[in-house]
Amino acid sequence: MADSIYANYPPDLSAAQQEYLVTTIKDWAIQNGLAVRPAPTSLPANVDPNRVLATNAPVTVFPTIYNQLYAAITCNEDWLGKIIEDLVDVDDFVANLWKTHLEVKKEGYVQNLSLGLFRSDYMAHVTSNGPPSLKQVEFNTISSSFGGLSAQVRSLHAELLTSPPGSPISYPPHPLFDSNLPPENNAVETLSGGLAAAHTAYGPSKSLPALPLCILFVVQEGERNLFDQLALSKRISQVHKIPVFRLPSNRILDDTLIPSSNPSRPLIYKPPHSPETAFEVTTVYLRAYYAPDEYKSSRDWEARSHMERSAAIKCPTVLNQLSGCKKIQQVLAEPTGPDHLTSFMKDISPALIARLRETFAPQYDLSTDGRGRELALNPDTAMKHVLKPQREGGGNNIYKSEIPGFLRSIPEKDWKGWVLMELINPAPNATNVALRNDGEVLRGNVISELGVYGTILWDTNGKILHNDQGGWLLRTKGKEVNEGGVAAGFSSLDSILLY
Amino acid sequence: MADSIYANYPPDLSAAQQEYLVTTIKDWAIQNGLAVRPAPTSLPANVDPNRVLATNAPVTVFPTIYNQLYAAITCNEDWLGKIIEDLVDVDDFVANLWKTHLEVKKEGYVQNLSLGLFRSDYMAHVTSNGPPSLKQVEFNTISSSFGGLSAQVRSLHAELLTSPPGSPISYPPHPLFDSNLPPENNAVETLSGGLAAAHTAYGPSKSLPALPLCILFVVQEGERNLFDQLALSKRISQVHKIPVFRLPSNRILDDTLIPSSNPSRPLIYKPPHSPETAFEVTTVYLRAYYAPDEYKSSRDWEARSHMERSAAIKCPTVLNQLSGCKKIQQVLAEPTGPDHLTSFMKDISPALIARLRETFAPQYDLSTDGRGRELALNPDTAMKHVLKPQREGGGNNIYKSEIPGFLRSIPEKDWKGWVLMELINPAPNATNVALRNDGEVLRGNVISELGVYGTILWDTNGKILHNDQGGWLLRTKGKEVNEGGVAAGFSSLDSILLY
Repeated sequence: MADSIYANYPPDLSAAQQEYLVTTIKDWAIQNGLAVRPAPTSLPANVDPNRVLATNAPVTVFPTIYNQLYAAITCNEDWLGKIIEDLVDVDDFVANLWKTHLEVKKEGYVQNLSLGLFRSDYMAHVTSNGPPSLKQVEFNTISSSFGGLSAQVRSLHAELLTSPPGSPISYPPHPLFDSNLPPENNAVETLSGGLAAAHTAYGPSKSLPALPLCILFVVQEGERNLFDQLALSKRISQVHKIPVFRLPSNRILDDTLIPSSNPSRPLIYKPPHSPETAFEVTTVYLRAYYAPDEYKSSRDWEARSHMERSAAIKCPTVLNQLSGCKKIQQVLAEPTGPDHLTSFMKDISPALIARLRETFAPQYDLSTDGRGRELALNPDTAMKHVLKPQREGGGNNIYKSEIPGFLRSIPEKDWKGWVLMELINPAPNATNVALRNDGEVLRGNVISELGVYGTILWDTNGKILHNDQGGWLLRTKGKEVNEGGVAAGFSSLDSILLY
Repeated sequence: MADSIYANYPPDLSAAQQEYLVTTIKDWAIQNGLAVRPAPTSLPANVDPNRVLATNAPVTVFPTIYNQLYAAITCNEDWLGKIIEDLVDVDDFVANLWKTHLEVKKEGYVQNLSLGLFRSDYMAHVTSNGPPSLKQVEFNTISSSFGGLSAQVRSLHAELLTSPPGSPISYPPHPLFDSNLPPENNAVETLSGGLAAAHTAYGPSKSLPALPLCILFVVQEGERNLFDQLALSKRISQVHKIPVFRLPSNRILDDTLIPSSNPSRPLIYKPPHSPETAFEVTTVYLRAYYAPDEYKSSRDWEARSHMERSAAIKCPTVLNQLSGCKKIQQVLAEPTGPDHLTSFMKDISPALIARLRETFAPQYDLSTDGRGRELALNPDTAMKHVLKPQREGGGNNIYKSEIPGFLRSIPEKDWKGWVLMELINPAPNATNVALRNDGEVLRGNVISELGVYGTILWDTNGKILHNDQGGWLLRTKGKEVNEGGVAAGFSSLDSILLY
C-alpha cells in the first residue's frame, strides 16, 4: 500500500499545473522573504550596480543529545587537543584555529560560557535486510544555515496543500496530500531562542558607565543568503526586544574594540552610522569565518582572535568549531577501541547511546595502514565511499572512483587529514520537481538530506544553562549531484510529509 | 517652534548613515514583500528570461462620505448618463464603456450589488492667508493601487524609528522622531474586508449542482506591481478563508464562462491547472481594464462585457468606473448652478457637505466660452493650472505653460473632453531622501500626495450594505516631477509623521 503511493509520487503535472505552481511559488517566495540575492556572475555588471535585485531561494530527529555530546567534547580540551594536534601539520586551517585558541588560553579566557547553534544532517539509509534508518552525514558546529528559510518553505508547502481554502487544488490530487501537512518547523524560534538565552546569561554591562547591550551577527561581505539570517535577527529584535547588528567580517577591527583599561575585556561595537552610541556585545554569532578562503590575510586571523579574547559569548568558540572536524566524527564512530561516546555521556542511558551510535555511518582513519586504506585504494570498495577533509559546508569531498587516484596524487603523510566514510544508500526511486532560483524547473530522481537544528549554552565546567532542539531543514538534490550546499545552487530547499 | 523643527527635516545623513539606511531598507523590503518586479527595459532580455527577479518598491481623512457620494452618483444613471453622453463623441474610451453598459442594460443586469474599492487623493494646499488645507487631486473608482505596499512602508518606517529596541539609532536624532510613530495603516484590512463583504453578500451558489465560490482578481499580463495585490489576496485567503484566483485579462474568455442554460448567469471559473474543479465567481476585482491601452482588440471589450453581464459582483461596474471621470469631479466642484452635492447626500448635514466642498480645488468646464477657456488660454493664468483628460492613473495631464499651445493644437470641439483644474500649492521647502527601485538614492525638494482608502457595497436602489474607510498612501515625489504614478517610477512610497 505505502509502496504504491510512493511509486506515483509526486503526481504528474500538466503544463498549466506547472505554470500555476511555478508562478505561485516564485511570487510567494518574494512576498515572504524566501529569497536570496542572485549570484553576481548571473547578472552583467552594469545591470544591478546597487545590488537591489533578489530572487526566490531554490525550493522543492535526535539533537538534544547531540548538543550535549558536542558541548562535552568542547569542554574536554585534552581529548580534543590530542586529535587536533595530530592534524596540525597537514591542515593549515585547523592549525591556525588551534593556534588562536592557544594564544587566547595563554592570556586567559574571560568568558566561560559557550553558545552552540548546531545542525545535524542525516540521510535515509536503505538496506536489503531491514527497515530504512537515518544515518548522520555530518554535524555542523559553525554557521549552520537555512534555519530561517526552511521554516518559510514549510509554510509555502503547507499553504499550497490547503489552498484555496475549502477546495485545495493547488497541487494535483494525490493520496499523500490528503489532510496531510508538513510538521511544524520552529527553527527560527529555536535558533533565535538560543541567541537570546546567551544574551541574557551574559548579565549586566561590564563597562563603566554601563553601555546598552547587543548581539552581533558577523557576516560575509556581499552575503547572498542574508534573508536566512534576517529571519533570526528579526525575531530577536521584535520578540526578544534585543538589539542586533550585522557586521561584515572585514569591518570587525574597524568597528569594535576592547578597552585596554578594562580587565573584563568587553567587546564594544560602535555602529558607523551612529558612532557616538557605543554598544557592548554580549554574543557574537558567526555566519562567517567558517572556511579557510575567508581568511584572506593575517588581519582576518587578528579579527578572529580579537573576538575570541573578548568577554562576548562566542557562537561558536574556536574550540567548538574545531569539534566539528570530520576527524572527531570518525573517532566517535570507531567501532573498536575506547568507548568515547559513553565517556562523554555519563548521564545518558546505554540504550540511548546505542541509538545514537546507530546513526553513525562506518568511518575510517587513513593515518596508518589498515581497513581504511584498503577500502579507499581498492577501486571496487572505493565506489561505496566518500573521502572528506576537515571542512564544513560541502564542495570539498572526493567521491567513489576518484578516491584512489586522488590519494595517490598527494603525499602519504597528508592522508591523515582525510576521513573515509561509507556512502549512505538512499531510496532508489524518489522523484521530485524543483524550481531553481533562475526560474528553471527540473524534474528527476532525487536524494534528500534532513538537517535538525539544536542550540545549547554551557560553561567550561560542562554545566548546561540552555538546551533546546527544534526545526528542521530538508534539502533535496538531483541524484547525479554529489554535494549538498543549497547556497551554491546544487540543491533545493524542501519540506517533508510524514506518512 | 514647529517651523524650526521642519526646517531641519530630514536630518543630514553621513555616508555611513546613508549606507546603513539604504542597506537596511532594501533588505527589509525583500524580506517583507515590499517589492515590485523590475521593468523588462531595465534588464537585458537574456538576464532574467523566467522573470524571477524582484526589487524593492520605491519608498520614502474624509472618505466614508466620499464612498457614499460616488455610490449615489453611480445609482443615478440619468444624471451620470447626461454627463457621459456629452463626452461620447470626443472620448472613444468613455464611449466604449458607456456602450458596454447600455448593451448589458438592454439584456438586463442580473446583479444589483456593486462594490467600490476607492482611493481619494489629496495634497496639502498652502495659502498666504490662512492655515494649510487638504485639496482633492482626484478620486479613483477603479484599480486603486498601493494599499498593500503602503501598509508595509508604514511598518518599515515604524521599525526604523524604534530600532534597535531601547536605543533607537537607525535614523539620526531629530525632535520629530521622539516617541513619534506613523499612524496605523489598515489599508489591507479595509480593502480585503470590502471584497469579503461582497463575497458574503453574493449568497449561495446559483449553479446546479452548487459550486464552490471564489473571488477573482482580474490582472494585467506581466503585472509588475503584483506584490501589492498579493497582500490583499493573502489576507482574503488566510483570514477570511475565501478562495482567490488571479486571472490575466487576456484569459477571461478562455477560463470563464456563463452557462447559457442558467438565467441567473453565474460566472464560472475553471482554473487551467485544475480544469475539472469549477468555481463560481462571487466578486470580480479589476486590477486591469482601467486604461484605454489595455483594450487591444474587440476581444478585450467582449471580455469586459462578459463579466459585466454575469451575476458576479463587479468591483467596479462600468457605471462606477465612469463615475470617476474627471468631468464628474468638475461638475461636482462647480460653484454656481445646481447644488449636486446636496442632492446626492440628502442624509448628510450641511456643515459636513461644506467641509467636503472645501476639499475641491477650483475646476472648470472647457466646452463653451467662459471662465475656463479664459484661464486656460491666457499664458499667465495657465501657469497656475493643469489640464486633465478623463483617465485615471496619471501620465496624461498637460501642465502650466503647455496648456494654451496644446488646446490650440486640437479641434475646439474636443476641448470638452478636458477639464481645467487649479494647481494645488504645496508647502515650499519640504525635503526628503528617496531610495529608488534601482538602488539610487535621491535627495531634494519634494511634494507629497495623501491617498485615503475606502470601500463600499451598495445595491442599485442606493441601499448601503457595507461602508468602511481606513488605510492611507503617502506618495512623495521630487518637486520637478509633475505626475504621481509610483509604478511608473516617478515617485516613492512614503509614510507620515503627525506633529
